[in-house]
Amino acid sequence: MIIDSHGHVTAPHQLGAFQAGLMAARAAEGRRGLELTDEVVEQALHEPVFRGPSHLQRLKDVGTDVQLISPRPFTMAHWVKPASVVRSYIRATNDIIAQQCRLHPDVFLGVCGLPQSPGGSLDASVEELARCVSELGFVGCVVNPDPGEMGGDDTPAMGDAYWYPLYEKLVELDVPVLVHSASCQNRRLPYSLHFINEESITVHSLANARVFEDFPTLKIEISHGGGAIPYQMGRFMASRYNRGGERWEDAVRKVYYDTCLYTKEALELLFRVVGTDRCLFGTENPGTGSARHPETGRWMDDLKQVIEGIEWLTEADRKRIFEDNARALYKIPVAQAG
Amino acid sequence: MIIDSHGHVTAPHQLGAFQAGLMAARAAEGRRGLELTDEVVEQALHEPVFRGPSHLQRLKDVGTDVQLISPRPFTMAHWVKPASVVRSYIRATNDIIAQQCRLHPDVFLGVCGLPQSPGGSLDASVEELARCVSELGFVGCVVNPDPGEMGGDDTPAMGDAYWYPLYEKLVELDVPVLVHSASCQNRRLPYSLHFINEESITVHSLANARVFEDFPTLKIEISHGGGAIPYQMGRFMASRYNRGGERWEDAVRKVYYDTCLYTKEALELLFRVVGTDRCLFGTENPGTGSARHPETGRWMDDLKQVIEGIEWLTEADRKRIFEDNARALYKIPVAQAG
Repeated sequence: MIIDSHGHVTAPHQLGAFQAGLMAARAAEGRRGLELTDEVVEQALHEPVFRGPSHLQRLKDVGTDVQLISPRPFTMAHWVKPASVVRSYIRATNDIIAQQCRLHPDVFLGVCGLPQSPGGSLDASVEELARCVSELGFVGCVVNPDPGEMGGDDTPAMGDAYWYPLYEKLVELDVPVLVHSASCQNRRLPYSLHFINEESITVHSLANARVFEDFPTLKIEISHGGGAIPYQMGRFMASRYNRGGERWEDAVRKVYYDTCLYTKEALELLFRVVGTDRCLFGTENPGTGSARHPETGRWMDDLKQVIEGIEWLTEADRKRIFEDNARALYKIPVAQAG
Repeated sequence: MIIDSHGHVTAPHQLGAFQAGLMAARAAEGRRGLELTDEVVEQALHEPVFRGPSHLQRLKDVGTDVQLISPRPFTMAHWVKPASVVRSYIRATNDIIAQQCRLHPDVFLGVCGLPQSPGGSLDASVEELARCVSELGFVGCVVNPDPGEMGGDDTPAMGDAYWYPLYEKLVELDVPVLVHSASCQNRRLPYSLHFINEESITVHSLANARVFEDFPTLKIEISHGGGAIPYQMGRFMASRYNRGGERWEDAVRKVYYDTCLYTKEALELLFRVVGTDRCLFGTENPGTGSARHPETGRWMDDLKQVIEGIEWLTEADRKRIFEDNARALYKIPVAQAG
C-alpha cells in the first residue's frame, strides 16, 4: 500500500472566487459560507490539472493508493485582516476537503488548514482543528510557521510556548501536524523557496526546544524533506559536539520528514541522515513536481519508482516509507486497510 | 597545493574593543582609526582558539597551504547607525587582515569586508573594495546579502540591479565576491542557520536574473555549499522544465560553491549536483566546524581528508576542488605557486 502523506486539494474554481469575494467584501460574504454540490466538487477531480491528467488519474498512474489532502498552502493568506476572512476561507476549504473525502473514502483522507494569524491567538485554530477531526473525520492538520509570510519574527518559531495551545489539542485528539508555510510576501524569494527556509527554521527551533519533553506524544511532520537541515547537518552537529548533551543527529529525529524532494540524490541523503524510520512518502502530486523530466519523460513527482530504484534500501525500509510510518503517525481508517 | 577559499581572520581582542568603542561613542572613536603593532597582530595567530590550537597551527595540522581570510562575518553589524561606525570597523578589520597577509605572505590572502547598509548606497562599499584590492593587494571581497540581518526585504536580492555598482567594480578589478551573511537579529533563528537561508535566496535570485548576461566575467562564490539549493534541486528543476528555456541544473552553475559542509554525504551531493568544476575547497577553519567528532576524534573542519575519502572523485576532480578552481577565480600570487 502506498500512502502519500503530502497532497493538496484540487478544489473547484468556486473556492477561489469565494475567497476573492471575502477579501473584496471584507468577510461580509463569509457569513453565508460556501456550499457546493457533490457534482461540482467531484468534477474538479476529473479535470486536467498542472499540464496533465486529472488529480484522480495522476494518483492512479503513479500507483498511489491513499493520499492525505490539505488546503493549497499558497492560497491560505493567514495575514489578511479582518480575521473573519481567513476563518471563512479556511473553513470553506476544509469543507470541500471533507466533501472529497466522503466521495472517495478509499483514496482521500483530510488534513485541515487552520485560521492562523501573525502572532495572534491560536483559539480559532484549536476550534477549527477540533471541528475537522471530531466532526469531519480529518486525520491531521497543516500549520504555517510564518503566517505573516515575510520571514520576520512576528510569530515565534515552533519551539516556542506560543504554540502550546495547539500542541495540547493535537495531543488530546492524537493527530499529527504537517508543517508547511503558505505564500511569501517578501520580494526577495518565491514562496516555493520560502517553504524551504521556514522548514529549516522549524526543525532547528524544535530540535533546540523542550516541546517533546512537554508533549511526549506530539507528532510533527516536516514538508519537503526538512528544508536545508539534512544537507546542512554538519554545522549543527559540530556545535552540539562542543556544547555536549544530546547530539544533533538525535535531536533532528524528534520530528518526521516527507519525501517531497524530486531527486534521487536528495532522497538518498535524507534516508541516510535521518533514517528511514523517520520518513513518510509524500509527493504533493499534483503540484510543484508535476513536470515531465525531459530525458526520462516521467513526472518528477512520481517518487515511488525513484524510491524503488534506490538499491540499498531494504524491503522493510520501503514499507516503512510507503506505509508503516504514515500508519504510525496518522490514524488510517479501516477503509484503507490495504 | 591546498587552498582554503573560506577562512576568517583571527584578530586580537583590541579589534572587538575598538568596535565596542565605536558603537558606544557613535563613531567619534573612529576618527583615530585602530593601529596595532605587528607583534600584537601576530600574537593572535599563535594563541589557542575555538577550543584547540592556534589558527596557524590548525592550518598546518590539516594540511592547508593557503587560506583566504575575511572578517568574522557575525561581527560586521552592517545595520548599525551612523554608517561611520560600520565604515570605521570594516576598515580597521581589513587593515588587520592586510597586516596578517603581510606577515604571512605564503599563507594568507585577503578578502575584504565592505561597509554596507540595509538598502543603502554601495558607494562606500565600492570605495573600500578599490582601496583593499588596489592598495592592499586583496584578492576578493565578502558581501552580506542581508545587511539588515532580519531576513526582510529592505535590501534587494543579489539578482537585482541594486548590486550593479558593486558588480561593475568587481569586474573592473577582476576579483570575485564571496557571499556570506553576517549575524541575525531575527529571533526565530541563529545566525548560523540564517547564513544558509540567505545563500539559498542568493543562488535562486542569481539563477533567475540577467546578472551574468550583463557581467559575463563576474565571479561569485556562495558559502556553505549553496545553502539548501543543491539538496532542493528537484522542485526548481520541475518549474524550469514546465517553463522551458534554460534548465535549473545549468542556471545554478553560473556561480561557484565552497565545500564548507562538514559531512561526507553533503559533500558528495554537492559534487554530483553542481559538478566538481564549480566547487572550491573552503572550511572556515577555525570556525563553526572546529569541533572534534566524538567517534573519530578528528576535527569536523578537516575536510581535506573527507574529500580525499570520496572514492569516486578522480585525481583531476580533487585538484580542481583543492586548487585549480580557486586559481581560476582568485588571483593567487606567485608566492603561492606551490
